[in-house]
Amino acid sequence: MRHDKRKNNDLRPFKLKTSVSRYAEGSCLICLGNTEVLCTASVEETVPSFIKGTGQGWVTAEYAMLPRSCPTRIPRDAVKGKVSGRTQEIQRLIGRSLRSVTDLKLLGERTIWIDCDVIQGDGGTRCAAITGGFVALYEACLKMAKGGVVPTFPLKDHVAAVSVGMVNKTPVLDLPYAEDGNAEVDMNIVMTGKGQFIEIQGTAERQPFSDTELRKLITLAKGGIQTLIRAQKKILKVR
Amino acid sequence: MRHDKRKNNDLRPFKLKTSVSRYAEGSCLICLGNTEVLCTASVEETVPSFIKGTGQGWVTAEYAMLPRSCPTRIPRDAVKGKVSGRTQEIQRLIGRSLRSVTDLKLLGERTIWIDCDVIQGDGGTRCAAITGGFVALYEACLKMAKGGVVPTFPLKDHVAAVSVGMVNKTPVLDLPYAEDGNAEVDMNIVMTGKGQFIEIQGTAERQPFSDTELRKLITLAKGGIQTLIRAQKKILKVR
Amino acid sequence: MRHDKRKNNDLRPFKLKTSVSRYAEGSCLICLGNTEVLCTASVEETVPSFIKGTGQGWVTAEYAMLPRSCPTRIPRDAVKGKVSGRTQEIQRLIGRSLRSVTDLKLLGERTIWIDCDVIQGDGGTRCAAITGGFVALYEACLKMAKGGVVPTFPLKDHVAAVSVGMVNKTPVLDLPYAEDGNAEVDMNIVMTGKGQFIEIQGTAERQPFSDTELRKLITLAKGGIQTLIRAQKKILKVR
Amino acid sequence: MRHDKRKNNDLRPFKLKTSVSRYAEGSCLICLGNTEVLCTASVEETVPSFIKGTGQGWVTAEYAMLPRSCPTRIPRDAVKGKVSGRTQEIQRLIGRSLRSVTDLKLLGERTIWIDCDVIQGDGGTRCAAITGGFVALYEACLKMAKGGVVPTFPLKDHVAAVSVGMVNKTPVLDLPYAEDGNAEVDMNIVMTGKGQFIEIQGTAERQPFSDTELRKLITLAKGGIQTLIRAQKKILKVR
Amino acid sequence: MRHDKRKNNDLRPFKLKTSVSRYAEGSCLICLGNTEVLCTASVEETVPSFIKGTGQGWVTAEYAMLPRSCPTRIPRDAVKGKVSGRTQEIQRLIGRSLRSVTDLKLLGERTIWIDCDVIQGDGGTRCAAITGGFVALYEACLKMAKGGVVPTFPLKDHVAAVSVGMVNKTPVLDLPYAEDGNAEVDMNIVMTGKGQFIEIQGTAERQPFSDTELRKLITLAKGGIQTLIRAQKKILKVR
Amino acid sequence: MRHDKRKNNDLRPFKLKTSVSRYAEGSCLICLGNTEVLCTASVEETVPSFIKGTGQGWVTAEYAMLPRSCPTRIPRDAVKGKVSGRTQEIQRLIGRSLRSVTDLKLLGERTIWIDCDVIQGDGGTRCAAITGGFVALYEACLKMAKGGVVPTFPLKDHVAAVSVGMVNKTPVLDLPYAEDGNAEVDMNIVMTGKGQFIEIQGTAERQPFSDTELRKLITLAKGGIQTLIRAQKKILKVR
Repeated sequence: MRHDKRKNNDLRPFKLKTSVSRYAEGSCLICLGNTEVLCTASVEETVPSFIKGTGQGWVTAEYAMLPRSCPTRIPRDAVKGKVSGRTQEIQRLIGRSLRSVTDLKLLGERTIWIDCDVIQGDGGTRCAAITGGFVALYEACLKMAKGGVVPTFPLKDHVAAVSVGMVNKTPVLDLPYAEDGNAEVDMNIVMTGKGQFIEIQGTAERQPFSDTELRKLITLAKGGIQTLIRAQKKILKVR
Repeated sequence: MRHDKRKNNDLRPFKLKTSVSRYAEGSCLICLGNTEVLCTASVEETVPSFIKGTGQGWVTAEYAMLPRSCPTRIPRDAVKGKVSGRTQEIQRLIGRSLRSVTDLKLLGERTIWIDCDVIQGDGGTRCAAITGGFVALYEACLKMAKGGVVPTFPLKDHVAAVSVGMVNKTPVLDLPYAEDGNAEVDMNIVMTGKGQFIEIQGTAERQPFSDTELRKLITLAKGGIQTLIRAQKKILKVR
Repeated sequence: MRHDKRKNNDLRPFKLKTSVSRYAEGSCLICLGNTEVLCTASVEETVPSFIKGTGQGWVTAEYAMLPRSCPTRIPRDAVKGKVSGRTQEIQRLIGRSLRSVTDLKLLGERTIWIDCDVIQGDGGTRCAAITGGFVALYEACLKMAKGGVVPTFPLKDHVAAVSVGMVNKTPVLDLPYAEDGNAEVDMNIVMTGKGQFIEIQGTAERQPFSDTELRKLITLAKGGIQTLIRAQKKILKVR
Repeated sequence: MRHDKRKNNDLRPFKLKTSVSRYAEGSCLICLGNTEVLCTASVEETVPSFIKGTGQGWVTAEYAMLPRSCPTRIPRDAVKGKVSGRTQEIQRLIGRSLRSVTDLKLLGERTIWIDCDVIQGDGGTRCAAITGGFVALYEACLKMAKGGVVPTFPLKDHVAAVSVGMVNKTPVLDLPYAEDGNAEVDMNIVMTGKGQFIEIQGTAERQPFSDTELRKLITLAKGGIQTLIRAQKKILKVR
Repeated sequence: MRHDKRKNNDLRPFKLKTSVSRYAEGSCLICLGNTEVLCTASVEETVPSFIKGTGQGWVTAEYAMLPRSCPTRIPRDAVKGKVSGRTQEIQRLIGRSLRSVTDLKLLGERTIWIDCDVIQGDGGTRCAAITGGFVALYEACLKMAKGGVVPTFPLKDHVAAVSVGMVNKTPVLDLPYAEDGNAEVDMNIVMTGKGQFIEIQGTAERQPFSDTELRKLITLAKGGIQTLIRAQKKILKVR
Repeated sequence: MRHDKRKNNDLRPFKLKTSVSRYAEGSCLICLGNTEVLCTASVEETVPSFIKGTGQGWVTAEYAMLPRSCPTRIPRDAVKGKVSGRTQEIQRLIGRSLRSVTDLKLLGERTIWIDCDVIQGDGGTRCAAITGGFVALYEACLKMAKGGVVPTFPLKDHVAAVSVGMVNKTPVLDLPYAEDGNAEVDMNIVMTGKGQFIEIQGTAERQPFSDTELRKLITLAKGGIQTLIRAQKKILKVR
């Protein structure tokens, strides 16, 4: 049994809360065990230079951890004067995942910024950011569609993410920090509402893994993601 | 009357909440109208190089606004690769204010970091950060004193801050963003529990001010700060 | 008595010298005791992006200390690759102070840069920069008005600044470095020719201060500023 | 058929060349179609601070593209003053992959730097860097083992990588730039000589992918990686 | 005699190879003893802002050493976040030298970037970069002239460079790293095909030098440069 | 005749003033025509890491232009966050020149910083910085020798520098900005008191130059440098 009494295929208790920001066009606070990520969606009437003039929009993400979101305080990227490699990797992943379900042509020449700020981090923050970021994005898109800013609702499907891993040679779902540090294999999986893959990122931190293990990890992830997407639909009142 | 029905000497409705962070040694969420600042205190067993070997400790602060804490999204300092002048000014002010009531010798060679992250900003964020940051600092100091890490409780007094200003030639207390943008004079005042000044920072944004006006602004500030310090004492159970 | 034989309400011996730069539109070398600041005013036919198209101008300041302006050599900001917090705070203060007496609409869409470079620093450099920077600004504005570049002289009043502080529980005017380092309270005050406040920045470095002490410090500052403004008027030949 | 006449499970023609650097402890020039990556291994008698004193070593990688390795010149990271997110992501991947087959304890407190510089880039550069970087690492480890610097040869297995992807709904092996830009799915797979996974990084650039497609991509990758590892063994004279 | 058996007026064995890059408009790999520099010329349809609108073009150079081009690995400029002083000095020298023989008016408003990347460095890399960079530039200019991009071939003369120096009080030509480190005087000379000077940069590292010594060094340099320019003409098929 | 009535072999009127800084160990204000450079020498009891433990000292220089030292204001390096290539080139030249006449072993493990700040710049600033920097260095060395900090006076010779150039095909000495911008050839020469070369840096900005021209330029430079060194000796009271 796991140290927090969960079964191997259990998610930690989680909660999605929408409309948590007074100013943002969309927002979501996602809590997953002790992990808490505040996601906001901001609509801006410009696009990055590489798509200017194409009539197409963009969805991009930024991610940061508050300095004391962790057991040990981590210095701010702003103080070091640069965004760390880990942070960049994560925000690129979030951005790609959310763009994959967005019809960028429907957006028109505007950018939706998804800001994911980790208030408290206990493992799985990048996956939580994708799952919560999608809710913020959805809210912002709804507002744009209702307001006639875009011709029709621009999202093609849902998207959510979970971490899975091999801990003591056992495949487990949704690793908190304590398990993550000891995992032989660490994998983040992003899937759509229709059950297809958007991203698979698996790393053998300590022990290479086999085809069979990959299979089992994917099965665990699918279950977790379906649960999360059901919760997204419920809170967003999607039938 | 003010646009939010307050009298000129009214604070906005406010709330202090302690122990809001699972990991930090001290923490406080301060809400003041629509302004929300999360303050954490982190104890670190090192000191900056300029006091190494003196046996003395340090209290320092960092301040940041979440990108969408405001009506318009503001780019992160980390992306621009440097801490803005405004941010540095604010974090220097918070640090000085909190050090002024701390017996740094009692701390021993350790640093307390006060991180003030603005979740939502509607004016008065630097003052809220001082008032809330003090609560986080107090909690951390209590824990250190109880744990025998420091020989005795190292804080000498309370400290809190409010903004005051001249709006339409009238002195008012605790300016939200809408008033702040139109104020002729903008002033931040930091005081101790004993009613003495730690900092006065007054700026004539549009109109120089007279001695008489200064007097009135200070009187307003005193009232507001006393109310805030009473609230600090209540939540911290200080008799 | 003070270590340099001055009375508590004495300024150090000072001198303003104009037209010291062959190239700048306005310039002033201000010496105040051992403090020497070279101030130049440069007129540029562009404005910062945030006021482009408003028809309005801008006054901004930059401040730096030469590396060996001090007893101990200080590394250049350029080598560290960033402008320090202290420097930013000071240049924002100088800029605000000078803008407060400038009719920015009359300037038209152009920027006046006030560069304040500390040749020798013995306390009070930011105040000297404001007092000398005003003279450089005045000279540049005169030249613009005479040349018909602006429709009429764009300055509304004089502005000057002094430091005051509590040293050994005594309020004193114009602190050199030796007093500054020991002051319980350190205050910089910026006033107009009409005797109104532009800025008050008071900090209790070691000891909170009372209303009465604030009163006395302000009285000292007023006297010093009047003397400085008389000197500005004399050298600028303002009746 | 593919535009370069290859079958879907064909690698591009490739060549590994060792000992190409006069100075480096190990080196390999890998050519894979038009992609050319120069990999060097440099042994340094220090370790990063986070493992100092553990008796353990480190393997780390840096990756860069020469400015005109591509059809369009790309500005140098050094000129922009920071390492791009893509570059950081790639060098983290290379480092992790090579560490996964290295016994870091056997290395002792020293670091092996693997520098991967893309002389010419036509897709698949990060995979080529892993495959070639391993050869450089192997050469350096041999030299260290022969010279008695390490007690015994510190590599546990071979490692190589290939890209696979869905192009026009067809799974294909080893994508050049022309295919990569049109792929619906892009995946980089890193495996050991024993056929186990070190990393899987799959991204649905345009179209989510199914379990079945994942299966097929993995099968293609395995074939390609086995071919590459055979070539590594041949040139390194491993029986 | 010199440690590598050369006479004092001998160049090291050298080779120029053109068209070594699949993508660049011009390219040259120059090997001079153990020094190897890859030079590419990239034509870009923009110019730096300071000549925009003049109808004139620009030639500029960038220079870098691969981290393990040397006996000891050197950290990348990109990692340090800035281009070192030495690198800037060298790329400014290369750019000036190549511009001096280019008719910038004939280029039209376009920039030719000469990228010089040191694959292996054993002294004389900046001179090799000029000699090889010229060949890459020539190739690119030929292509532009043939394609009718420019009205007529825009180069006015050849240019090449060598290092000379005083080693053990003896003037010698083309110093490898071993001699360079011990030289009393180190000089880089850039000349045209007509035998005139473009640049002389001589430094007394350990011992000031006399007029007579200067004379001898220049004579040596002339001989070396003539040999290099003959080789340029041969490979470029210039009659 | 030249636009300022000088003969081709005339220096501009110049003046050296010593002990101009209250704090620096040595200092010199050099005025050469309209060019004014303030040079200070600061002694620091540490050395750069690359000579730590060798018992040897170091002399290094920093150079900067005040923003309005020129007809057009130039932005500060500190604001751009990096030291420009031109600045680095100049400070490396000044440092090398001054080290060439210093017995670094006699200095012991300490660094002398020569800060050269251009108050007003009208051409020839780097040469003025060398000539004036030497005087500041000399003063500091005298103080160290008198105070017994160093066993004996550590300078081996004098050093000074001038610019020469070809203007309208005529060799001229000491170019002001107006000539410099039109010069076909621009050359900076650094020589010792004994009349030997420390540095020659000649650049054909517009027109390659011949041996004969080089000869004439050197002759002009020698004359100018002798005059400057006589002035150095006079003000420093060297017999």
